[in-house]
Amino acid sequence: MEKKGCPGFKTAGVSCGLKKNGQKDLGLIYSEVPANVAGLFTQNRVQAAPVLLDRQRITRGVCRALIVNSGIANCCTGEQGMRNAIQMAGFAAAGLGVAEDEVLVSSTGVIGDPLPVEKIQVATPALINALHGEGIHDLAEAIMTTDTVPKVVCRRGELDGVLFTVTGVAKGSGMICPDMATMLCFVMTDVQASPGLLKEMLKAAVDRSLNRITVDGDTSTNDTVLLMANGLSGAEVLNDAQRDVFQPVLDDVLIELAKWLIKDGEGATKLVEIVVTGAETDMDARRIADTVANSNLTKTALFGEDANWGRILAAVGRAGVAVAPEKTDIRFGPVLMVQNGMGCGKSAEVEVTKVLKQTEFDITIDLKSGKGHASVFTCDFSIDYVKINADYRS
Amino acid sequence: MEKKGCPGFKTAGVSCGLKKNGQKDLGLIYSEVPANVAGLFTQNRVQAAPVLLDRQRITRGVCRALIVNSGIANCCTGEQGMRNAIQMAGFAAAGLGVAEDEVLVSSTGVIGDPLPVEKIQVATPALINALHGEGIHDLAEAIMTTDTVPKVVCRRGELDGVLFTVTGVAKGSGMICPDMATMLCFVMTDVQASPGLLKEMLKAAVDRSLNRITVDGDTSTNDTVLLMANGLSGAEVLNDAQRDVFQPVLDDVLIELAKWLIKDGEGATKLVEIVVTGAETDMDARRIADTVANSNLTKTALFGEDANWGRILAAVGRAGVAVAPEKTDIRFGPVLMVQNGMGCGKSAEVEVTKVLKQTEFDITIDLKSGKGHASVFTCDFSIDYVKINADYRS
Repeated sequence: MEKKGCPGFKTAGVSCGLKKNGQKDLGLIYSEVPANVAGLFTQNRVQAAPVLLDRQRITRGVCRALIVNSGIANCCTGEQGMRNAIQMAGFAAAGLGVAEDEVLVSSTGVIGDPLPVEKIQVATPALINALHGEGIHDLAEAIMTTDTVPKVVCRRGELDGVLFTVTGVAKGSGMICPDMATMLCFVMTDVQASPGLLKEMLKAAVDRSLNRITVDGDTSTNDTVLLMANGLSGAEVLNDAQRDVFQPVLDDVLIELAKWLIKDGEGATKLVEIVVTGAETDMDARRIADTVANSNLTKTALFGEDANWGRILAAVGRAGVAVAPEKTDIRFGPVLMVQNGMGCGKSAEVEVTKVLKQTEFDITIDLKSGKGHASVFTCDFSIDYVKINADYRS
Repeated sequence: MEKKGCPGFKTAGVSCGLKKNGQKDLGLIYSEVPANVAGLFTQNRVQAAPVLLDRQRITRGVCRALIVNSGIANCCTGEQGMRNAIQMAGFAAAGLGVAEDEVLVSSTGVIGDPLPVEKIQVATPALINALHGEGIHDLAEAIMTTDTVPKVVCRRGELDGVLFTVTGVAKGSGMICPDMATMLCFVMTDVQASPGLLKEMLKAAVDRSLNRITVDGDTSTNDTVLLMANGLSGAEVLNDAQRDVFQPVLDDVLIELAKWLIKDGEGATKLVEIVVTGAETDMDARRIADTVANSNLTKTALFGEDANWGRILAAVGRAGVAVAPEKTDIRFGPVLMVQNGMGCGKSAEVEVTKVLKQTEFDITIDLKSGKGHASVFTCDFSIDYVKINADYRS
């Protein structure tokens, strides 16, 4: 666990009583100076009040703080929900002495329940009091729902001789699907960059990370990814050369967090990369990779460590893309299990079973029909997934 | 369990050693006279050898017999697989004294393993010997894979004063998804009808039944639905009036079998109809119904008997259809749980929980935006689904 946050950002996490078990459920990020900000939000047509609020506020391109709660999503809560989101921001703004519309808001948890804002109001002074340059771990805890571990990734780089930091926190861990999973992900950096460029870089990084993971095909109403840049390091990202230095560090933070979300996916025991090559187009490859990665029969077989490649080929066949099964190869790790659409026999299966016993491996599907390529991270589908989700609200 | 089959058809089921547990795994349907026949097959791009063979043979519009095995799907088995499917038909044809191309073939089970045709060859004489007018139960057993009960439905009707019979057998029970699930379904009737009309009526019936069910979103490589009509009752289906009598009986058989497939879905404990009304088009309604019916989070909540309507609304929102969440109502059985996108409170939830404890109920999603309508049957998603599918091949 990284203890360090990002220079110029203070963070905190406390318990305000939204979670029944008394664990931390209210978090805060505070930037000592106005930070440029960019955000990406859920594509779901049903969107929570804080998402709707942030979409408005982020158009300013600048913010000072983010207040976030877990336990209740403040979604499908109507006008009252929007009032509550605004109030929640107001508590933080008043305590921090910043303008209300410089505060962003996030929520995650059960959909449909009203947000007990009075609990948040009562706890906000203690939350602000707890702000600390090394409070990132508390923040990461405060945004957890069914996550089993807090997730913080911190990377450093050098721009024109100046050191900079990129620190991200994220939470999963069900409802994870490509194109913005149920996730909250907040990234802080001390470089200087315009809101427009931040958005471009965030979009590129998310396409390489959070948009390439899937746990269960369900996307959420509250997905939010924010990137805040306070400029305090003195490092600037203005031109292409500077971007070429910063982007890989940002990518690295988000890819690391994305993989972590999958590893901590509900009930997950394995992190599996589904790689599709030789498709006619990248889009075709992506559709096939997504279909395989979301196939319950494939995912339960991964849980059972069963080299049931027929289920993978059946998923390829129903992806809605023209494929030639009789040309298709499938590898588990380095082991060729299917050649030209047919199994390679028992000895290959013995080797594949060894691969399946690992906790991280890839499955490569080569269609041998073109240059299209895609990959997506998924996890296995375990008994615990069902247990967790059958009992989530009780 | 119906003991009776259909006049003029003899059926049988025996064990030939494909299933490890020694249960029945080889079945036969024999029509005493040439029967007109129509079929529908999987839309998966990966198709098993028997499906490819039947697609050719069924163009003749006439058949005498069907031989079917469970345990091995004879899929992804290349040219050898096609040779084996032809051989399998040949064994039955030789024993029955009919032309080889009058015999259709089906297989279901593990994908990728070669079919041990010699076991089928050895068992065919006993299979033919077991043919019986009341052998339908044995046939239904012989096609089971993870099904827990054999499924036979028999209905009778009257056409122009002549009694007729429609008898169907089917197997599921995983990989069940709209647009031809992994299922085998064989329907026999003693009416007289042309192959073209049989196909039309079969298509209509399947659209109202087997294409409206989903267990896990995975479709298979072997799906086959056949309708054989031997004309022995003397009842004829020629004109619209006669069709209006026959179609509902055929529909009834297929709807009953479809609901049974869901009730016996892998690990299923509940049969739930997802009804969508008030969509802009029927197509929109169908996309939403399918998305909800396949949502793992919705299905695990059903298993947990949890009135977690937020997951349903979230699934509605990601169906890729424009919806107005703030107008949407959701009912569990007769109980209004969500009105205009917001929960109706604890007392409604108490009533909904009573509905959820039932084994059969419907969930109605009213978008209040148009006249589009659709419904689909699904089941809950239980711990046993994962257990069954993690261990399937071991």
